[in-house]
Amino acid sequence: MDNVRVIKVKQSVLANNDTRAATLRKKLKEKGIFLVNVMSSPGSGKTTLLVNLINRLKQNLRIGVIEADMDAVVDANTVEAKTGVKTVQLHTSGECHLDAKMVDEGMNFLGGGDLDLVFLENIGNLVCPAEFDTGATLKMVLLSIPEGDDKPLKYPLMFERGDWFVFTKMDAISLFDLDVEKVEASILKENPNARFFPLSAKKDQGVDILANALLEQVRSYQEGKQ
Amino acid sequence: MDNVRVIKVKQSVLANNDTRAATLRKKLKEKGIFLVNVMSSPGSGKTTLLVNLINRLKQNLRIGVIEADMDAVVDANTVEAKTGVKTVQLHTSGECHLDAKMVDEGMNFLGGGDLDLVFLENIGNLVCPAEFDTGATLKMVLLSIPEGDDKPLKYPLMFERGDWFVFTKMDAISLFDLDVEKVEASILKENPNARFFPLSAKKDQGVDILANALLEQVRSYQEGKQ
Repeated sequence: MDNVRVIKVKQSVLANNDTRAATLRKKLKEKGIFLVNVMSSPGSGKTTLLVNLINRLKQNLRIGVIEADMDAVVDANTVEAKTGVKTVQLHTSGECHLDAKMVDEGMNFLGGGDLDLVFLENIGNLVCPAEFDTGATLKMVLLSIPEGDDKPLKYPLMFERGDWFVFTKMDAISLFDLDVEKVEASILKENPNARFFPLSAKKDQGVDILANALLEQVRSYQEGKQ
Repeated sequence: MDNVRVIKVKQSVLANNDTRAATLRKKLKEKGIFLVNVMSSPGSGKTTLLVNLINRLKQNLRIGVIEADMDAVVDANTVEAKTGVKTVQLHTSGECHLDAKMVDEGMNFLGGGDLDLVFLENIGNLVCPAEFDTGATLKMVLLSIPEGDDKPLKYPLMFERGDWFVFTKMDAISLFDLDVEKVEASILKENPNARFFPLSAKKDQGVDILANALLEQVRSYQEGKQ
């Protein structure tokens, strides 16, 4: 009985969230703001990647960041200190994901009239964030090399719904014998449009390729709005 | 409004779960079965550690394993093939955690009349599993070295509620500059009874210490029941 009640409420929450997310996505499109939902396990390197990416892109694009955590502020402080771009920290009060309403509030705080690109750093979690549409234009999923090659099998929704997949900590590959091609093949099976970006943000290898792809994507999105 | 409804249902679900977990814990105590709830991020090395631990302990203890995944069976197959102990795979159908009812069903499948120790490998997630009492005797939390030292700050409930903390992939420490003492200090601040076990299951270093501590704990639990 309890399970039935939970599921019903969850369905209603998801339906309301989908409506809000669609409204937010439309609003962002009108303003030409490209929103990237960055998701991964805890400790996959989201913050380190964002700092590197933002420092590469901030000459060309006006960037904002929405950080999410249950109740810490470390990531927002790190990103703001190391990049200088406007950052807001959302607290989910124990919730395991961000929803469109929280993101809308974050966007309001950032202002948004003069932004091209907003990164949304979701809660470190491969389960719940996959279910909730945040209104993002692009879903970027990080998989760090030490996590192993079976993650697409174990967290199928995240790997089916993601758009771009970034393999982080590639500098550690010799220690962890991960077969990147095997992971790519298992993702492509359920998600044939997936794109892959292997890199090491710490060693500054491959981030330029991701930065260029993102810049191109934002420009084409903004041209599309006219 | 939606949030209020979710929270109410969640409170009721948590309260029902607490009652079920207490009943299960009492039943396990009467039978002398020690249940370990193993939790961590995805890819921290739960399965690899369990295989190593079980192979060390199975001469002295009768062991069973409950594996949980959203819909994969790889871990149960791996553990059963590499250890020979009885293993059951639970599917949570997209849920981000195990609850006491699911664990009770897993225990029924294992039989349990002739077991000393059962490992419960929870969903890879540092958020949701921390909230749900599974009826376990001991909560073992793994933190892999590549995940970094800020996890206790970002996932406070997991690190406040855990009993034993296992630092896995210690063989990679030179690559990731993690300060183990700093992590221990940050856990102890909120959780003064925490115990720590740094190890590498892959290199077979330090697992003996954890295995001996667990054997001692199971024996003293079983003596306590008489």
